[in-house]
Amino acid sequence: MRLDQLSTPSLVLDRRRLLRNIRTMSERAQRAGIDLRPHLKTAKSARVAELATAGHSGGITVSTLAEAEYFFAHGFVDITCAVCMVPDKLERAAALAARGARLTVLTDHGDAARALASRAAVLDARLAVLVEIDSGEHRTGLAWDSDDLLATARVLNESRQLRFAGVLTHAGQSYGCKSVAEIVRVAELERRAVVDAAARLRDAGLSCDRISAGSTPTAVHAQSFDGLTEIRPGVYSFFDLTQATLQSCTVDDIAISVVATVISHHPEHGRLIIDAGGLALSKDLSAAGLLPDTGYGWICDLATCERINDLHVAIADQEHGYVTGRDIPYDRLPIGSRVRVLPNHACMTAAAYNRYAVIDGGEGPLEIIEWWNRVNGW
Amino acid sequence: MRLDQLSTPSLVLDRRRLLRNIRTMSERAQRAGIDLRPHLKTAKSARVAELATAGHSGGITVSTLAEAEYFFAHGFVDITCAVCMVPDKLERAAALAARGARLTVLTDHGDAARALASRAAVLDARLAVLVEIDSGEHRTGLAWDSDDLLATARVLNESRQLRFAGVLTHAGQSYGCKSVAEIVRVAELERRAVVDAAARLRDAGLSCDRISAGSTPTAVHAQSFDGLTEIRPGVYSFFDLTQATLQSCTVDDIAISVVATVISHHPEHGRLIIDAGGLALSKDLSAAGLLPDTGYGWICDLATCERINDLHVAIADQEHGYVTGRDIPYDRLPIGSRVRVLPNHACMTAAAYNRYAVIDGGEGPLEIIEWWNRVNGW
Repeated sequence: MRLDQLSTPSLVLDRRRLLRNIRTMSERAQRAGIDLRPHLKTAKSARVAELATAGHSGGITVSTLAEAEYFFAHGFVDITCAVCMVPDKLERAAALAARGARLTVLTDHGDAARALASRAAVLDARLAVLVEIDSGEHRTGLAWDSDDLLATARVLNESRQLRFAGVLTHAGQSYGCKSVAEIVRVAELERRAVVDAAARLRDAGLSCDRISAGSTPTAVHAQSFDGLTEIRPGVYSFFDLTQATLQSCTVDDIAISVVATVISHHPEHGRLIIDAGGLALSKDLSAAGLLPDTGYGWICDLATCERINDLHVAIADQEHGYVTGRDIPYDRLPIGSRVRVLPNHACMTAAAYNRYAVIDGGEGPLEIIEWWNRVNGW
Repeated sequence: MRLDQLSTPSLVLDRRRLLRNIRTMSERAQRAGIDLRPHLKTAKSARVAELATAGHSGGITVSTLAEAEYFFAHGFVDITCAVCMVPDKLERAAALAARGARLTVLTDHGDAARALASRAAVLDARLAVLVEIDSGEHRTGLAWDSDDLLATARVLNESRQLRFAGVLTHAGQSYGCKSVAEIVRVAELERRAVVDAAARLRDAGLSCDRISAGSTPTAVHAQSFDGLTEIRPGVYSFFDLTQATLQSCTVDDIAISVVATVISHHPEHGRLIIDAGGLALSKDLSAAGLLPDTGYGWICDLATCERINDLHVAIADQEHGYVTGRDIPYDRLPIGSRVRVLPNHACMTAAAYNRYAVIDGGEGPLEIIEWWNRVNGW
């Protein structure tokens, strides 16, 4: 099957770009002498996980227990679930651990750690636990110099079932940076937050095996990884328009796109309509604030994936995308023709699909060479 | 299982509210003496379709071929796919028709109608076709007074396989109205657009069996349905905060919510974090522009579904929702406790889930009484 035979909308993954993105990040971690523990919340795909972990420890990062279960079923054993754990979710986590998963979970609060320890005792759940550090995003995590840091680690250390494993942070504020210089500064804050937290813990006699940091922008732009044991970027495998605005990549690195069909022309209103709307692209507008004429994604040629003029999806109804731009080539894009849409935010767009139509990405005919599945939901 | 035992995030459907919403709209159509052909792009559920079609023709509206296939498999035969059809999708449509579905598809262009007729001849695809009329949304559709209207209908009429069935419109601009008076005016424009188009067609000797209009806001607020044969509202079965701002419903009518767990407290930053973010709620912000302190949804009590102060999800990362408000009752919402989130836009939020946890919705214990499946994707 070829791209022009896919039912639309469909999600396409360019393997050549994927491999290049994975290799670049992998070499970056290897040069720094640290582990790359890819965050698979973006790809949610065992095939991508195999490629992304090659040459590293094999450890992965996930954001849901559904992902943890899926990747364990696909042979991944060392899994960190990087969203704060609550007692009610421990039963599923414990079941995975009992089957042989080396599962690490997260907490950012002494009371929550006590509740986890108490439930873990009931379930005899053997889990490693990282304490999350807030490096400036103010989402979850303790400040590195917080009084609660040592107390929380001690709660974990005193549990028979749980094991305090180290510290983790995510400088998600890097997504809001306006320049590379700003991302460089955020990356250093991110690194320092966990390195300094680990120093405090070690000074207090608590061993801190893992010192984990990383978002894609900070992993790409950081000038130092000193003191870290691992980084956990995720969206770098695919990239997207948001990452291009952050100069984490160029537009030519974006490995993921949505194939859509032109279903209507409205030259009198300066638009054409495609069959990819809010469900097919997501309602994420993250790149649009930084990049004019972006909307919900760029319209590109089906074969070359090069942008067509300044065309973009300006409005996204459930199943309709309104394409506009200063010069719409209606003759080149008749009703029934196909385009590719480069997404704002790969993680959000990919989540609407159960599988990837994988293309080689070279100059040849655009054959679907493989189908790779994904895990969605929770 | 009870609401406080669900894994989170999960999608909950309050059957009592659902039945009330369905009954109100059903009675409205019956009083007007027209058919209610519910648009199932919101619910994507055979169980909801059974309830919503009771007392009417049994015809339904869908937005994707995946929905058409799913509902046909669940016993629905009279199915209108209300997104413009392209020739490449005719094979799937023809396969359904060959198995006994009475499928109606849509076109809004003479050339597209010719391409459909030509492909239908190759496939021997027996399909009814409606011509879409633009009643002011300027998404898809011909103007009622367009030269192309008669030509397009004639192309269909001359096809051996296709059958011209009438006209259809959707005044989606009703979602952007600022007052009920404005919606009333839009509803009248919507009605007039198809009634006038049908008059032109009949004057030209083209029979026009179906005259179809309807969005939820216009179906709720229209003062006349004269000349219409059917209405096709969709989100009215669930409603959402957007519909509440449009006064299509009250907040107490919203039948759908997301159960989420509090996973972190950050009083120092004036927020708590839940495990429902952009994937669990969608990134749709449609109500937020009209309603202050709404963001990605309102935070409500797990049991009563009544809003807690002015709490709302202000930021939605992939798996984290940042809850804020002027007075966050941290003691009432400890880490591990659960809330319900009322969504901005039910269609977008529901699409993240494969099933509904159905509750009765009364005052009793919040037992999950049934699980209803959904069809997603394309």
